[in-house]
Amino acid sequence: MPAPRFPIAHPFDDDKLREECGIFGVIGVQDAASFVALGLHALQHRGQEAGGIVTHDPEQGFNSARRFGYVRDNFTSQSVMETLPGPLGIGHVRYSTAGSKGQTQIRDVQPFFGEFAMGGAAIAHNGNITNANALRRELIERGSIFQSSSDSECIIHLMARSLQRNIPERMEDALRRVEGAFSVVAMTRTKLIGVRDPLGVRPLVLGRIGEGWCLSSETCALDIIGAEFIREIEPGEMVVITDGGVESHFPFRPQPSKFCIFEHVYFSRPDSILGGRSVYETREAIGRELAKESPVEADLVCPVPDSGTPAAIGFSLESGIPYAMGIIRNQYMGRTFIEPTEQIRNMGVRLKLNVNRALIRGKRVILVDDSVVRGTTSRKIKDMILDAGAKEVHFRIASPPTAWPCFYGVDTPEREKLLAATMTEDEMRTHLGVDSLKFISLNGLYRAVGETNGRDSACPQYCDACFSGEYPVRPSDMIEKGFSLKAAE
Amino acid sequence: MPAPRFPIAHPFDDDKLREECGIFGVIGVQDAASFVALGLHALQHRGQEAGGIVTHDPEQGFNSARRFGYVRDNFTSQSVMETLPGPLGIGHVRYSTAGSKGQTQIRDVQPFFGEFAMGGAAIAHNGNITNANALRRELIERGSIFQSSSDSECIIHLMARSLQRNIPERMEDALRRVEGAFSVVAMTRTKLIGVRDPLGVRPLVLGRIGEGWCLSSETCALDIIGAEFIREIEPGEMVVITDGGVESHFPFRPQPSKFCIFEHVYFSRPDSILGGRSVYETREAIGRELAKESPVEADLVCPVPDSGTPAAIGFSLESGIPYAMGIIRNQYMGRTFIEPTEQIRNMGVRLKLNVNRALIRGKRVILVDDSVVRGTTSRKIKDMILDAGAKEVHFRIASPPTAWPCFYGVDTPEREKLLAATMTEDEMRTHLGVDSLKFISLNGLYRAVGETNGRDSACPQYCDACFSGEYPVRPSDMIEKGFSLKAAE
Amino acid sequence: MPAPRFPIAHPFDDDKLREECGIFGVIGVQDAASFVALGLHALQHRGQEAGGIVTHDPEQGFNSARRFGYVRDNFTSQSVMETLPGPLGIGHVRYSTAGSKGQTQIRDVQPFFGEFAMGGAAIAHNGNITNANALRRELIERGSIFQSSSDSECIIHLMARSLQRNIPERMEDALRRVEGAFSVVAMTRTKLIGVRDPLGVRPLVLGRIGEGWCLSSETCALDIIGAEFIREIEPGEMVVITDGGVESHFPFRPQPSKFCIFEHVYFSRPDSILGGRSVYETREAIGRELAKESPVEADLVCPVPDSGTPAAIGFSLESGIPYAMGIIRNQYMGRTFIEPTEQIRNMGVRLKLNVNRALIRGKRVILVDDSVVRGTTSRKIKDMILDAGAKEVHFRIASPPTAWPCFYGVDTPEREKLLAATMTEDEMRTHLGVDSLKFISLNGLYRAVGETNGRDSACPQYCDACFSGEYPVRPSDMIEKGFSLKAAE
Amino acid sequence: MPAPRFPIAHPFDDDKLREECGIFGVIGVQDAASFVALGLHALQHRGQEAGGIVTHDPEQGFNSARRFGYVRDNFTSQSVMETLPGPLGIGHVRYSTAGSKGQTQIRDVQPFFGEFAMGGAAIAHNGNITNANALRRELIERGSIFQSSSDSECIIHLMARSLQRNIPERMEDALRRVEGAFSVVAMTRTKLIGVRDPLGVRPLVLGRIGEGWCLSSETCALDIIGAEFIREIEPGEMVVITDGGVESHFPFRPQPSKFCIFEHVYFSRPDSILGGRSVYETREAIGRELAKESPVEADLVCPVPDSGTPAAIGFSLESGIPYAMGIIRNQYMGRTFIEPTEQIRNMGVRLKLNVNRALIRGKRVILVDDSVVRGTTSRKIKDMILDAGAKEVHFRIASPPTAWPCFYGVDTPEREKLLAATMTEDEMRTHLGVDSLKFISLNGLYRAVGETNGRDSACPQYCDACFSGEYPVRPSDMIEKGFSLKAAE
Repeated sequence: MPAPRFPIAHPFDDDKLREECGIFGVIGVQDAASFVALGLHALQHRGQEAGGIVTHDPEQGFNSARRFGYVRDNFTSQSVMETLPGPLGIGHVRYSTAGSKGQTQIRDVQPFFGEFAMGGAAIAHNGNITNANALRRELIERGSIFQSSSDSECIIHLMARSLQRNIPERMEDALRRVEGAFSVVAMTRTKLIGVRDPLGVRPLVLGRIGEGWCLSSETCALDIIGAEFIREIEPGEMVVITDGGVESHFPFRPQPSKFCIFEHVYFSRPDSILGGRSVYETREAIGRELAKESPVEADLVCPVPDSGTPAAIGFSLESGIPYAMGIIRNQYMGRTFIEPTEQIRNMGVRLKLNVNRALIRGKRVILVDDSVVRGTTSRKIKDMILDAGAKEVHFRIASPPTAWPCFYGVDTPEREKLLAATMTEDEMRTHLGVDSLKFISLNGLYRAVGETNGRDSACPQYCDACFSGEYPVRPSDMIEKGFSLKAAE
Repeated sequence: MPAPRFPIAHPFDDDKLREECGIFGVIGVQDAASFVALGLHALQHRGQEAGGIVTHDPEQGFNSARRFGYVRDNFTSQSVMETLPGPLGIGHVRYSTAGSKGQTQIRDVQPFFGEFAMGGAAIAHNGNITNANALRRELIERGSIFQSSSDSECIIHLMARSLQRNIPERMEDALRRVEGAFSVVAMTRTKLIGVRDPLGVRPLVLGRIGEGWCLSSETCALDIIGAEFIREIEPGEMVVITDGGVESHFPFRPQPSKFCIFEHVYFSRPDSILGGRSVYETREAIGRELAKESPVEADLVCPVPDSGTPAAIGFSLESGIPYAMGIIRNQYMGRTFIEPTEQIRNMGVRLKLNVNRALIRGKRVILVDDSVVRGTTSRKIKDMILDAGAKEVHFRIASPPTAWPCFYGVDTPEREKLLAATMTEDEMRTHLGVDSLKFISLNGLYRAVGETNGRDSACPQYCDACFSGEYPVRPSDMIEKGFSLKAAE
Repeated sequence: MPAPRFPIAHPFDDDKLREECGIFGVIGVQDAASFVALGLHALQHRGQEAGGIVTHDPEQGFNSARRFGYVRDNFTSQSVMETLPGPLGIGHVRYSTAGSKGQTQIRDVQPFFGEFAMGGAAIAHNGNITNANALRRELIERGSIFQSSSDSECIIHLMARSLQRNIPERMEDALRRVEGAFSVVAMTRTKLIGVRDPLGVRPLVLGRIGEGWCLSSETCALDIIGAEFIREIEPGEMVVITDGGVESHFPFRPQPSKFCIFEHVYFSRPDSILGGRSVYETREAIGRELAKESPVEADLVCPVPDSGTPAAIGFSLESGIPYAMGIIRNQYMGRTFIEPTEQIRNMGVRLKLNVNRALIRGKRVILVDDSVVRGTTSRKIKDMILDAGAKEVHFRIASPPTAWPCFYGVDTPEREKLLAATMTEDEMRTHLGVDSLKFISLNGLYRAVGETNGRDSACPQYCDACFSGEYPVRPSDMIEKGFSLKAAE
Repeated sequence: MPAPRFPIAHPFDDDKLREECGIFGVIGVQDAASFVALGLHALQHRGQEAGGIVTHDPEQGFNSARRFGYVRDNFTSQSVMETLPGPLGIGHVRYSTAGSKGQTQIRDVQPFFGEFAMGGAAIAHNGNITNANALRRELIERGSIFQSSSDSECIIHLMARSLQRNIPERMEDALRRVEGAFSVVAMTRTKLIGVRDPLGVRPLVLGRIGEGWCLSSETCALDIIGAEFIREIEPGEMVVITDGGVESHFPFRPQPSKFCIFEHVYFSRPDSILGGRSVYETREAIGRELAKESPVEADLVCPVPDSGTPAAIGFSLESGIPYAMGIIRNQYMGRTFIEPTEQIRNMGVRLKLNVNRALIRGKRVILVDDSVVRGTTSRKIKDMILDAGAKEVHFRIASPPTAWPCFYGVDTPEREKLLAATMTEDEMRTHLGVDSLKFISLNGLYRAVGETNGRDSACPQYCDACFSGEYPVRPSDMIEKGFSLKAAE
């Protein structure tokens, strides 16, 4: 018996779309850094590679700490936290971006800080600047020295060169040159600033904590610190928060909003609130919709843990087929990257998941997953289920086929690696080797998220480019590199 | 707004009973250490503090590595694994024992190794020796030098002093002096040995992998390496496995078996098989039984994640009340111990769990948990649920009141810290501040694990001392230290 | 007996002037990084806090690694060195600067790198820019974002904004704006560049290695890699080295040279060659000169190890009094900083040095040291010698009284902490409590370094500001902060 | 130009004999651990691989810490030192022994601790037990479990099995079974114990500190803590120190003493006192004797740093030839082991040493070294000196030819790797390629250490087995392994 190839990367890591960032800021509290750390801990699912915190204290000025690894491992020690004094702070968690091949350096970790003539400012950015290459070339030509490979650094250099006098105005000035998707949390010595791009692609919410205020990618980070959820920052809005309160501006030309629909499907935490409803309920509704659209006779509805769980519960409730945990996740899996080859990643699923063999044997099983990206994990899970003696395997997917890459702050494989970019639904079923495979329709998804009339094809209510190929902001940098937009139909 | 106290220990760590060890061994494979590492990874829930592996290679002899921390962090690197060559190996994962105040030293980490006149042997032990203090005194008086504070080290010293000639016979000789609960995996240069105590308190199973064999605390560790589950080792059985096959002995005086019933309730992984059925199904059956015994009108059945999940599903299926994830676990919580004071542990729940506020508001909620130990976590969770606006909170517990400590290899608080040792069910309800609180009955639990006639009070089919106070093996060391047995009724 | 306060900082760390940097570069070799690492290892005495290396490879572009700690600990591992491919590289070792209070961050560690419109460049700087504050203000006003607190970063921003087309010309342009002392090693994709300021305050030498070339602060780094010492770079000279050979320019207005005389006294390694003679021989000559100027009857001449050794040998040879190692250095002292309070530093000498009690007892001892800065160590050593039973203690110092801080790249205490700034020689003798104390005269020092007619007071042949208070470059930043120049006499 | 092979082991590591241990103990002070740590720091030259400290506190009992690496890196942190409370403690520093091939494990690091029926004891051992193999076999046969591969562990097992009642008597009982060389420091809850073997091969001294006492391998460790040197422990003496004072016993049969003469030549620190004189003075006297025995005309006397320095000074004083530092040691060399192949070790000398080229060129140089073991380093140094342009190179060695391995606690190569075991002095001169090579005579060495009549060949006053092949204790274990004693003449 030869030894198992060992050890093993996170099995799903290249078979999910990954949100690239979470941002958080707070003002008007004692020891802001602790709040920022707790907030980032609650947003860890949005970025696990690295995190950073900047604070400002009237006596000790700006301080920052940036580290690779989890918030809980870096921003809990007395020795680190006491270097971050003051009532005002912002923070950032991040994944590595697709282009960097995992070679992120600490200098790429946000927040970024710049010293301007009128004082310093720090910014943390969630999203992606689609004209970053052109901006960078222009800034270098004018004499800026870039320290990171991050597109977000453009913002701070644009701010440094702005002719405006105060920092919020410089920030407006800078962001008007920026194309793409961005939610930004920034700070000066006395102000906490939040901005969403005109389309509002990425989320940003406002909370109240005692006499202070906070900004966060999601409401779950308000809960952890006991803050009250006030409202979402609106698309195109800039809020400038001081001890005096919250001022709101709309510095950009108004446009129809295009919130990322995948936040509902996968990125946001189920206990966060989006559009007035818990994400969990939305996902349960997607499962119900899927059960209506694509029913099948079976003995059990099982989620692919953990992200398929709410939709599987919804599918079970709608169909009346019992819900069961046919696949068990090893909670000690962690993120161990030793030989992250394609081959080992596939093999690795068994380290993270195990089939409940005694339960599954002889059963017709519906597996509910949130999405299919490359399909590598789906095949492996199907093999495990059949190997355990299941009689039939039916896949039900809580999102439409993912056929286009995202250029707005989400890590997606190149288009040719997306299963749905190269196969029809039927070819995918054959490829995966399952008895049936059904995706929710794009209209069904819109209904489930609350658009009772479905998708408005003339002007879709969400950004759904990953499904539809309709990009609300032209991905200039990628087109320059050879990416082809969908042909007009 | 003052800063949150930060950071924070694992919130449930002192409010659960904790299995103290997992053991695994394999013979007849190429690179045994990789299989042992995978097996221990699957058994990590049985012991997270430290792990160790010993292997034997005909050319390089015995080698060992013992480390604090998770298997995935220690036994995955090339540099460690290549120091563990050979076709035969055993391993162990452990928690700290109650007495050591968390000051485990690396010398306490198993497997233990001894060089005897006829060659070396290594052993790994799951359970607890109830006469260890007396044995240790006797051995020291005779000139043995103990290297650890572990009760398990007695076994290897008894073996060293045995008059028998070969190692399996020395082991029988030694174990006949030992009282308590033990499953042991041991190895010599050519043999893999497994033993269960005469009562069979702790589990041990036999698997087949290619031309080789393995022994494991649970079947989930067979699944991860692709081994076939052959059978459970019987109470009082010793198996000696060589290249020639499996020999079985019964060196102890036969007794009625007393398997730990809490393995069904909490310790074992839901995907393991115990008594021919998946633990998941047993727990679902406990939930159904609980719904029959203690029904209540409500809007939602929510598990306390993650261990209450199967019973909650069973409760929902039996009662028809919809199942929902009202509490969301932060999957990045980890085990961060910085200031593990009582106060902070209570506070810490919020770091691990968040209530799905939008879902819970205005609802009557049934919370299903596996057990109540100190009750500290239960109170905190109830507060979170009410704070989120629930109309009613009903606790349903998938085990009887835990009123007695375990002395057979499980970490339990002192008796006076067990909520059920000092309060009636009604007092507990008031203490926890919930609308209703119901535990499954001891008979109900026996029925759910498959004893259709319930508990045989003359000779219970399981060890249920933690519920009943009836200890099948006299806890001599503890009585010496002042522990009072339940008065005969 | 109370416990000794423990542990203990490097005992001499605040009682020596410290050179702040060493620089090294090489072109035209296979695996330049290994040569740079070896060169920096040989220059480690010029900066022990941190080091960095940048290399360029035609295929993999620029790469860099910057680390805290010794070269031997950071730039020896396969894993680090293989990230630094290519035939061209530069490196830097540094101390923390006086102003930073020991809080150097990794972003302050050189070489600095900048991406310009025509390609990247990296620079490493030894010295100090005396108008850095003014330059920084100007650059920030124009929109530059500084990443470090280092004065050296000004150079790269000035280069980024230069109107010149190629990098050597941009560098000339930048350095013309810079005041102070600087030796610079820089690189582009194809060029290795070396520059010394017009006064030539800091050293820089050229070496030949096979078909390649190298630049180094000192010749000892040529020896370690087996390179041939060609010549010193001249004050005000810029050399641009390519595969085609070495081009020499003189971009600055010519001025009389002012090489730092303290390089002879203490900074340079004794095996380096300065002015055609080994530094060891110069220091021996200083000792001889000192013996002539300030003879005394005694039994032994002992060096204060290790820096006083060559002068002590010279003193012994001139005076005929036997040389002996009366003080022994603990070679395992290292740099352990745990509680670097003033009190402990004083106490700490005993950890590093021990008196040879049996040898010293009853003897008249001449102690030869290179310099007296604060005098704290000198007092401690005198106490140890007397405590061991010496009959008389005579201090002979191989440099004139250090009465003025250096602003040209040397870490000196504030003026009021320099013993010689506040006391006469006689007051110092009383303060130190020794039988006699004599410094070499400034003229004597000039004679010993080879100026047979001594110091030309109209136009001194060296920079001797630390002794004379005559600063060849106006220390603008320091004057802005309140430093008072010596009143004209 | 190919890259230099990099990096590089300590260049002298296999070309010196190495003392294997230093021991230290203290009683009657506040916070004994700090004193032990300081003492071990001063003894670091006797063992650099690992160190350990055991202390006893009336309330907290025995505590220990054992670590790889330098004392200064391990036993200085608050976190480690506060785990070692109490007024009584012992410690140990060690090299790896020849047999272990550098694979020392932490369980091999002393002090060793044993719990006996009447209480615990810890021991630290300097020396080597020559019948350890036979003892170990016997002890295992009787049922002892060994935890380490160290010969010293035999002592603690013998003590455990002794029939005597108190620990000092058990220790006497155990040590009477032990053959070889040993100095031992041990402790119980209330006693500090010191013993030297009947021959007194390894050193041990007694010191007074305040109201307390200490034991140390050398006097330099008394100096560092400010203790007074009282006297050497005598060969065959056991001292038992309590609060009541020092009791002395002589439990062994008296024998003529055989102190290791190599302690004078190399092992002991020059500032330690042996036989009433500083080791430095003895080495200077060896140099003088060598100059008398083997004079040569030359321009410079240069030490091979650092161990050849005192003898070189003595040679210079006797001969009148000027002393000079022709070879400079890089003080930042450290112990970096990355690829410790034979080839690289030879190459590595250049990383540690550099020739003072400008000084050496054209000169006739006498190089004084303490010993020649394999001769690999000597050849390399000669190459460097000639490469720098020396006209003649004359080696003078401050010890006789090292022709036999030591079995009494010193790490020596196998006999066939000792240069002097296979070559005559003349063959060695040719092999090393120098103009002349002279060793001090054995009689000359005895005269220099104070035996005015030279060596008493009937009963030598010292153990000089490494030079003479006359072993005062039969090396039983080695003979069992095939070592041949010198044929009787």
